[in-house]
Amino acid sequence: MGIRLGRQTVMLSTPPAVIGYAGVVGQKEGEGPLKGCFDYISDDSYFGEKSWEKAESHMIRQCFQIACGKAGLAPEGLDYIFSGDLLNQCVSSAFAMKDCKAPYMGVYGACSTMAESLGLAAMVIDGGFAAKACALTGSHFCSAERQFRFPLEYGGQRTPTAQWTVTGAGAVILAAGGQGPKITHVTTGMIVDAGIKDANSMGSAMAPAAYETLKAHFTETGRSPNYYDAIFTGDLGAQGHDILQALFRADGVELDARYMDCGVLMFDLNTQNVGCGGSGCGCCASVLGGHILEAMNKGVWQRVLVAATGALMSPTSSQQGDSIPGICHAVAIESGV
Amino acid sequence: MGIRLGRQTVMLSTPPAVIGYAGVVGQKEGEGPLKGCFDYISDDSYFGEKSWEKAESHMIRQCFQIACGKAGLAPEGLDYIFSGDLLNQCVSSAFAMKDCKAPYMGVYGACSTMAESLGLAAMVIDGGFAAKACALTGSHFCSAERQFRFPLEYGGQRTPTAQWTVTGAGAVILAAGGQGPKITHVTTGMIVDAGIKDANSMGSAMAPAAYETLKAHFTETGRSPNYYDAIFTGDLGAQGHDILQALFRADGVELDARYMDCGVLMFDLNTQNVGCGGSGCGCCASVLGGHILEAMNKGVWQRVLVAATGALMSPTSSQQGDSIPGICHAVAIESGV
Repeated sequence: MGIRLGRQTVMLSTPPAVIGYAGVVGQKEGEGPLKGCFDYISDDSYFGEKSWEKAESHMIRQCFQIACGKAGLAPEGLDYIFSGDLLNQCVSSAFAMKDCKAPYMGVYGACSTMAESLGLAAMVIDGGFAAKACALTGSHFCSAERQFRFPLEYGGQRTPTAQWTVTGAGAVILAAGGQGPKITHVTTGMIVDAGIKDANSMGSAMAPAAYETLKAHFTETGRSPNYYDAIFTGDLGAQGHDILQALFRADGVELDARYMDCGVLMFDLNTQNVGCGGSGCGCCASVLGGHILEAMNKGVWQRVLVAATGALMSPTSSQQGDSIPGICHAVAIESGV
Repeated sequence: MGIRLGRQTVMLSTPPAVIGYAGVVGQKEGEGPLKGCFDYISDDSYFGEKSWEKAESHMIRQCFQIACGKAGLAPEGLDYIFSGDLLNQCVSSAFAMKDCKAPYMGVYGACSTMAESLGLAAMVIDGGFAAKACALTGSHFCSAERQFRFPLEYGGQRTPTAQWTVTGAGAVILAAGGQGPKITHVTTGMIVDAGIKDANSMGSAMAPAAYETLKAHFTETGRSPNYYDAIFTGDLGAQGHDILQALFRADGVELDARYMDCGVLMFDLNTQNVGCGGSGCGCCASVLGGHILEAMNKGVWQRVLVAATGALMSPTSSQQGDSIPGICHAVAIESGV
């Protein structure tokens, strides 16, 4: 049963355990600082398929299968799969799971999808609706570029504040019982519109949403940032990372080196030509499934807060002059509870 | 706390009550057989906005506000809003709710979104995570046409099996306590790929998913179709309606006149030139929010099963030769429980 702590945060009375997780990425991500963390690195941007959209779907399915394997579970053992992605009508996750005989709930949280789906998976388990559930998402640089920006062949110039959509997928399987790190709290975001209209500055569009959700999390749980060994945002990038620190600093709260952004961790910003860092559903997802949960299992961190951020826009909304509202969902993951 | 009855169905131990609902539609829908049911009929396809996408968003927001008003609730009184739509990146629902200060969970279930979001809203309430939650979605003929099919100005011919995207929105507000009809069971769909590739024959693509979900619902609850006073599919249209009846007939199960399809109910198929009937997220949503729940409150029906169907495809997936997998989520709504 859930316990409401405040406007946005619920506590799970019997925290569900992470029993399986995986991160799969593309070649460029596999050459970055986290290269040793992933379950699979593909040197083929097509993942053996005929289009980038099918490649994205293939990658998500592969990641899901690895996580199921680690959990010692057939897909049929899952009571729910929560999944979504950035492609129009969320087709890469739907096609990835179309032959998987498990109840399927499509979610759309833009790049916050990993935290949204993980929060929902934890809630349906703690609420008694499921014994096991999976949170799953991914993104692909090439399919995102042609859908959101320009044909790759055009070779468009990128602004310094732009980010690089991660080719990557992440899967996390939760269970009502188990030995792994546990989901203890879920803080669901409200939409925050800071009025940013520059689609090449997503970090500044999303940082205010991250600020509001993290502030709500700290207030409603009575925890300070120091409670956590590590705090991750999903894909604010270097610019958004600094904006978030500045927003908290104005409140007299210091987010020190324990605060990291998955988009900054994914690439070497000095040498890999990715602007402000990684972005996309697959950024937070593959770092969580490939790096964070493994480090928790190894005892590097005991208490981790993952706050995935999303930009709620489409090319059409931007072309029609709309701003880019942001959203951020946060999930607390703790060992030894 | 949820009680699992089987692979796909959960029972809500304290069924959440419907405390507010609304249906808003466009002019053509307001000239159909259900014209007396809706809370608002707009004779302006732009709903006073400058684009059809903004019109869709406006309509969803308006519907949400009417439902909140009927529930005697400010948006701030909601613990969760579950919402999604058909537009790329689900922008119409996100922009509709961007200034609403409530935790927001984006969902994507194509035209099954109303049942998916209603099921999730019921589950978070029964699981103790929320006291009040809203399920909300909509669709707009003009924004859907230009995104999925052709520019309206092109005047494309429609095949006889095609359906007409409903301009409409529906909102349902659930609470942990209350006098209204209650959500008693949620049957979550698995993705079913019948191999259909004709994007102008969505009814045949989605009917097998409806069949599988309804069959699971009847088996896992131990109920026959006769338990219900009325059974609704979301937007199978006339063709899909007949396919679903034929699929059950092959099992020796007769879905008689108590089985109706929202897409068939919405329009006069003989005079309104809509092919096989209405479709879109807003079809099931506006019929549920405008017609079904009001009829239940008036005592017309006591036991209703709403099974919304979705086609998991995008123009890109169809252009790349993919099939159109379907999904169907079902929610049992009962009075006097």
